[in-house]
Amino acid sequence: MSSIFSKIIQRELPAYIVAENERNMAILDINPLAQGHVLVFPKVEVDKIYDLSSEDYTSLMLFSQQMSLLLQKAFLEKRIAMAVIGLEVPHAHIHLLPITNPGELNFTKAKTPLDSETAARVLAKIQSAEQQV
Amino acid sequence: MSSIFSKIIQRELPAYIVAENERNMAILDINPLAQGHVLVFPKVEVDKIYDLSSEDYTSLMLFSQQMSLLLQKAFLEKRIAMAVIGLEVPHAHIHLLPITNPGELNFTKAKTPLDSETAARVLAKIQSAEQQV
Repeated sequence: MSSIFSKIIQRELPAYIVAENERNMAILDINPLAQGHVLVFPKVEVDKIYDLSSEDYTSLMLFSQQMSLLLQKAFLEKRIAMAVIGLEVPHAHIHLLPITNPGELNFTKAKTPLDSETAARVLAKIQSAEQQV
Repeated sequence: MSSIFSKIIQRELPAYIVAENERNMAILDINPLAQGHVLVFPKVEVDKIYDLSSEDYTSLMLFSQQMSLLLQKAFLEKRIAMAVIGLEVPHAHIHLLPITNPGELNFTKAKTPLDSETAARVLAKIQSAEQQV
């Protein structure tokens, strides 16, 4: 069975897509821990991120670096934290989170589901950062 | 002034070194959140990890992947989580943590300083995993 991320890649499930290239995709987390919480994942379906081939791993990490730089431009007052937990969806993914203190990176705290209005606002903020030189 | 990590690289400060290559180093965290908590950092001193050149970033990430695979062999019953907070030492570094549940990745919880006996035992465990085929 396809993972939820594979279904998003195949457009069988909706998502707030931030960016996509040949091998990777970035979407808004629908249960964000912080505003601008983005998930980055490879199109190849692998459970453990470190089991990716060196080529796919490198591609994913460089894509994640681009997304971090973009989020940094969109959320200037924050730092972009990065986390891979590997205990939720069995399709490797990286969390990118604009934060101001380490306590915000806490995957056990209660999450607020993302509503479509907030999602649109966050996407617009990220896209506007993308258009800056 | 050199960062604490630069001083470790230059052997001006002691550390429990797990591995080192031309551009990167891995050491045991002396305030571990979990057994086998490793810090991976580039020899070049950069504050934000995503500000590394693509070349240094790729090198660091591939080194981190090797370390994750090694830790996975040493801690078979765990998953190797990865985190970059970026709010502590101003020298970019990746935390690698063998965990079994997401709550273990919590950088605000009380830490137990690493004693030399435990450090020796953890290093031996990792080195023994390295020697397995």
